[in-house]
Amino acid sequence: MRRHRMAQSGEKVLVAVSGGADSVALLDILSRLQEELHIRLHVAHLNHGLRGSDSDEDARFVEALCSDLGMPFTAGRKDVRAFVREQGFSLEEGARIVRYRFLKDVAEQVGAARIATGHTADDQAETVLFRLLRGSGVKGLGGMHPVREERFIRPLLAVRRWEVEQYLTGRKLAFRCDRSNEDPAFTRNRIRRELLPLLRDRFNPNIVRTLVRAAAILRDEDDFAERETALALDRIAKKREKRKIVLDLPSFLEYHRALRRRLIRRICGELAQSPGFEETERIMRLASGQGGMLRAASGIRVQRAGDALLFKLGETPAFRVAVPIEGGIALPELEARLITSVFPRASSEESSWRSDATCAFFDRDTLAGRLIVRNREPGDRIQPFGMKGHKKVKDLLMDRKIPRILRDEVPVLCDAEKIIWVIGMATHEACRVTSRTERVLKVLKREA
Amino acid sequence: MRRHRMAQSGEKVLVAVSGGADSVALLDILSRLQEELHIRLHVAHLNHGLRGSDSDEDARFVEALCSDLGMPFTAGRKDVRAFVREQGFSLEEGARIVRYRFLKDVAEQVGAARIATGHTADDQAETVLFRLLRGSGVKGLGGMHPVREERFIRPLLAVRRWEVEQYLTGRKLAFRCDRSNEDPAFTRNRIRRELLPLLRDRFNPNIVRTLVRAAAILRDEDDFAERETALALDRIAKKREKRKIVLDLPSFLEYHRALRRRLIRRICGELAQSPGFEETERIMRLASGQGGMLRAASGIRVQRAGDALLFKLGETPAFRVAVPIEGGIALPELEARLITSVFPRASSEESSWRSDATCAFFDRDTLAGRLIVRNREPGDRIQPFGMKGHKKVKDLLMDRKIPRILRDEVPVLCDAEKIIWVIGMATHEACRVTSRTERVLKVLKREA
Repeated sequence: MRRHRMAQSGEKVLVAVSGGADSVALLDILSRLQEELHIRLHVAHLNHGLRGSDSDEDARFVEALCSDLGMPFTAGRKDVRAFVREQGFSLEEGARIVRYRFLKDVAEQVGAARIATGHTADDQAETVLFRLLRGSGVKGLGGMHPVREERFIRPLLAVRRWEVEQYLTGRKLAFRCDRSNEDPAFTRNRIRRELLPLLRDRFNPNIVRTLVRAAAILRDEDDFAERETALALDRIAKKREKRKIVLDLPSFLEYHRALRRRLIRRICGELAQSPGFEETERIMRLASGQGGMLRAASGIRVQRAGDALLFKLGETPAFRVAVPIEGGIALPELEARLITSVFPRASSEESSWRSDATCAFFDRDTLAGRLIVRNREPGDRIQPFGMKGHKKVKDLLMDRKIPRILRDEVPVLCDAEKIIWVIGMATHEACRVTSRTERVLKVLKREA
Repeated sequence: MRRHRMAQSGEKVLVAVSGGADSVALLDILSRLQEELHIRLHVAHLNHGLRGSDSDEDARFVEALCSDLGMPFTAGRKDVRAFVREQGFSLEEGARIVRYRFLKDVAEQVGAARIATGHTADDQAETVLFRLLRGSGVKGLGGMHPVREERFIRPLLAVRRWEVEQYLTGRKLAFRCDRSNEDPAFTRNRIRRELLPLLRDRFNPNIVRTLVRAAAILRDEDDFAERETALALDRIAKKREKRKIVLDLPSFLEYHRALRRRLIRRICGELAQSPGFEETERIMRLASGQGGMLRAASGIRVQRAGDALLFKLGETPAFRVAVPIEGGIALPELEARLITSVFPRASSEESSWRSDATCAFFDRDTLAGRLIVRNREPGDRIQPFGMKGHKKVKDLLMDRKIPRILRDEVPVLCDAEKIIWVIGMATHEACRVTSRTERVLKVLKREA
């Protein structure tokens, strides 16, 4: 507890107790350390409803245990099978998700800063093998952390399962046996009951300790590389929004291959979810190749364009918003806002009314009806400032080399008749401020 | 071959051929690519003498194969059992060492820049498991490199064993079966025949590909971290000699735990050999703890002293060398040399004859007989410059806070009667340059 600073004085710790050996030992140990560590305990038990009356008896067992210890207790019941049916997870994975959600909810209800689970060194070894067999990089092979998200703590992670059992025998404590731990339909049970015994008997009698050590080293290695990745991302991100991250491509390509791979995984993870091996490699090839665009399974599109490597989640949602002549509106879809004002034309030079990427000027009296701002639509046209004919907005974007995956987020400002500003690109020739202009409309685009 | 730039045009490649399926396929493929890649081939076969007449038949088989292909061929024979008995390796490990030595020797004899071996993706998966079971960090879990030390190349490392067999069948090529591949006394055979089939049948039908991929990622991760380690070592090494490396301790402690661990392993590797898990952790604790000294199994001593973390291999060998009055001598034991000269005292201030850490001045005519330089010995004493009484050299070193593990390398310069210079520390009061001095002896200590 102390070495990993698992709990601070005065904190409340929620103890997840299934009724099995590990969690009963955990509860007993924590209840004995309660005063010394100045922590308060609360017990949570989830009935997954997977084993009928057995599950119910587990719940009653834990309740009785808490009542003996005078420990506050919250029981819950979830229909894991229904959840799994709906979400398409495996029963193992589904039970895990439901359990952690329950624990977080109870922790919030009772005001617990930490959630303690009874995972042991044997669980750790099983986790490492589980992830190796499923195909995992450094992160996965590091196994479980003694402390995760500062909240989940695993005080028994360095303790062997036989030590837990010895402890329970010594303390004459009863516990429940979960018969689903023997069901070979669960990968973890096959690892525990078939693989680990083979490894121990035929290869390495200390296999659990060996795997736990390897995991500890790999966790440190992963942490180091992740810190370097975070620093690199801060250095080379030109834009970092909720649905869009843009990297400086030459800087990206200067990083080591391993860090590039981690950058890709981290960026996709920030936008939606980290890609698997094949998808990461595809993005790696795109970045170091000749350009182009690809769609990842998570809905992220990646494009290499000029000096930029763009990651964008989904299409920009459609929007169409009325814009007041004086005031401001938010464009949450673009993480931007528009600010408008009208004022008399001063005697300044015509050139001072020149629009740029974030600011445009119009002759107020050339505008027809109310203003709206909306996404670009197919067929949009404009007569750009300084030109004679009309031009398709699409062609305008291509001329300006706007990357394909960003084109759907270019907004246009319209009056009742026409597009007056392809924002950031071009204003309409007919609305320009001239020597005859009396009132000027100024529109500013700012980040939200 | 091309992707990993395994051989350059015009190079000679030594192909290691055991006669088994993998190496026969490798030889056939390379011989067919010979012209296209502009490489020349030479075959090497080592008879380990482990399987009696079977081994001899393997050798005859490879010889016949080369003669059919018109390929130059070198056969060798080593008594692996005798080697293993002498050196205490396992038979597996011993055979590997002997084989690689043989291949390096033959490559040198025939002028081959590369040595190709027939390792497949299946061998790679076995290697990853082998190392995981033995306890290995990122480096080990990365498995074999497609190219190692620029010299060893493994063109079939991405190819499955069943693909090799299919290729041989298609080309109607014969090969030899090594029955020792079935001997369960060898860990590798147990991995191949017991563990991998279990993993494939009960956990993951693509287990080989999964492990090969994990290894590829881990190799990149390891390479990244090793580069960072090399950069860090360049930054924080205050001294880097063959038998001694000194780090700036505060800078060392600023690095991430994973990098500190790698720095320790790398430094010890440069001096003698990388330590295992426990020893690395002991050095980690020493470095971040309250000081002290420890001895590693490899003969490296590590000491924390002031702002320095010192790594030193072995004691400094004893030496005793005559020093000419004018000229120079080498002190290979200290990676240093002494340069001497004699000249008339000019009229300059006495203070300009003040000695320092690398330069000392003496009144030539106070010196008795020939000069020698030797290690410090127990009982050594000197009357230091500016002091009245004598002092033990040991006390002098302690006063100067010379770290314990460096004290054995402090040399002393003596005339026939006394120590005249504890080099770098103190000169003898009786030999000082005074206004009565006529001839000055100057001694410089320089790095070798």
